[in-house]
Amino acid sequence: MTAALMCSRHFLPTIPREMARFELNILGCGAATPTLRHLPTTQVVNVRDKLFMIDCGEGAQIGFRRAHLKLNRLGHIFISHLHGDHCFGLPGLLSTMALSGHTGELVIHAHPDAEQLFRPLFDYFCRENPFDIRFNAISPSSSEVIYSDRSVTISTIPLKHRIPTCGFLFEEAQSDRHLRGDMVEFYNIPTYMRAAIKQGDDFITPDGQTIPNAHLTLPATPPARYAYCSDTMYNERIIPLIEGADLLYHEATFADDNEAWASRTFHSTARQAARIATKAGVKSLLLGHFSARYDKNEEILLQQAREEYANVQLARENMQIVIKK
Amino acid sequence: MTAALMCSRHFLPTIPREMARFELNILGCGAATPTLRHLPTTQVVNVRDKLFMIDCGEGAQIGFRRAHLKLNRLGHIFISHLHGDHCFGLPGLLSTMALSGHTGELVIHAHPDAEQLFRPLFDYFCRENPFDIRFNAISPSSSEVIYSDRSVTISTIPLKHRIPTCGFLFEEAQSDRHLRGDMVEFYNIPTYMRAAIKQGDDFITPDGQTIPNAHLTLPATPPARYAYCSDTMYNERIIPLIEGADLLYHEATFADDNEAWASRTFHSTARQAARIATKAGVKSLLLGHFSARYDKNEEILLQQAREEYANVQLARENMQIVIKK
Repeated sequence: MTAALMCSRHFLPTIPREMARFELNILGCGAATPTLRHLPTTQVVNVRDKLFMIDCGEGAQIGFRRAHLKLNRLGHIFISHLHGDHCFGLPGLLSTMALSGHTGELVIHAHPDAEQLFRPLFDYFCRENPFDIRFNAISPSSSEVIYSDRSVTISTIPLKHRIPTCGFLFEEAQSDRHLRGDMVEFYNIPTYMRAAIKQGDDFITPDGQTIPNAHLTLPATPPARYAYCSDTMYNERIIPLIEGADLLYHEATFADDNEAWASRTFHSTARQAARIATKAGVKSLLLGHFSARYDKNEEILLQQAREEYANVQLARENMQIVIKK
Repeated sequence: MTAALMCSRHFLPTIPREMARFELNILGCGAATPTLRHLPTTQVVNVRDKLFMIDCGEGAQIGFRRAHLKLNRLGHIFISHLHGDHCFGLPGLLSTMALSGHTGELVIHAHPDAEQLFRPLFDYFCRENPFDIRFNAISPSSSEVIYSDRSVTISTIPLKHRIPTCGFLFEEAQSDRHLRGDMVEFYNIPTYMRAAIKQGDDFITPDGQTIPNAHLTLPATPPARYAYCSDTMYNERIIPLIEGADLLYHEATFADDNEAWASRTFHSTARQAARIATKAGVKSLLLGHFSARYDKNEEILLQQAREEYANVQLARENMQIVIKK
């Protein structure tokens, strides 16, 4: 029996440690009225060096550049809803991608109206566009998987806003089991077989003895989950979808003083965001989409949220958060 | 004869000194590829506290806010050509105007295609827009007056670029003649009559003697002129239109090292811009639309321009230039 045959299933390459990243980059975290403090909402999730943009406010391409992210790693943009502060960065970003010779396909996941609004602009302004732009129409009425690869699955989170809106849940794919160093040494397991064992294979010794996988490995780190919820009013229906997430980004447009106005405009207060975090048992909470009226006193949002939930912080431009520790 | 009748023509109010401003605000002066140093091209001309925007690159509304300009004084936007870096700020700016309750009319002077490209966006994203947006289609094939009021006349300057493009010439209206203080005192000219005399009236003394205006006043300051020329390749045909302008803004995308590329892409070098300034005998030159490749060494553009024309400076964001001294 050859060494290759001693593994009980087909070999898949292991993901190197540096490729196992799952990080969030905040490019903008302001609300609709622009300020000199914040850019409008834009985020980039880096899953194993593939970049996924969430919303694309005006100036997104500048934030992208400032964060030293690489345009050629961006393949998907997810637009939560068609309010201008969440999508007016699209024409500029895509023009720059065209100018820089981007190739392949870029998919824009958005409300069905997005294509008829933006396609004419792309066709006109990016005439010599070397890459394909595809729109994937998403319906925010129920949660559905809109993207999946071997690293991540992305599904929608129906939200309650003035127009059809959805958040996005990023669920990292299950990573490999941890190979026990003492067992590797004890059984003298060859290097080329270790990847398959980390993926669940048993080990068959040269004399034919089967060593069960559970004896050789420790359970894999649970896959990390990131939930993006903006814009939305307080809505407990999202809780089952985001339960236990490693990180929840929840809009916190207003403080307590504007709770009634938050409700009327289908937004949330920081305290309401923290209540959702508590009820969903998430591991950490990030607040954003700050109204311009708190531009000089955003700490009030943090204080009020902390009264409900401890592990919370305010988003800020150029912030990078490692979702998977 | 009443005092009012002693003036030989109808009274027009004088423009207070603080209202006689004619200033240029640079909000962005970069070229198509965005950098962290520059915003794309956007300018605002303040003529007697009316604001006129020239081009509207992505982030224009942020530059506008940074310059402490007032949205409610903005009534006209002039788009030189339909490349994205000169107009992608329109949706964001207009949305913010709608959000802030802007009323009245905003006129966008642009190539005829602009309306079909941007109107659908405005209609969709600014549904509760409290102001009217009107497009004035301009043809860049010959110079024509596209706006005029009692303070300023604005006409197009046909430019040579890859697509139909025009610059804009702002010509201040003739201001009043200067009333001689010694004559006011000698003839004891009443305050309420001085405005009409500054506008050319003779003075009739209480005993019926006519004092000719030329005896009472000194010639008015010549009206100031500002010429905006971007984007364009070197083009001597613009010289008769901009001759003697107080300030010429001319694009200077490249340095000498890229002269051939400048010509191929229908842009100018800094030296070519300076040659135009010399040949047109303008009083000062402002360079802008800098390629990202000079981001760390823009002084080379200034040096090369200075070899041709002395009174030149580089544009920068948040710069304000008083056109009329």
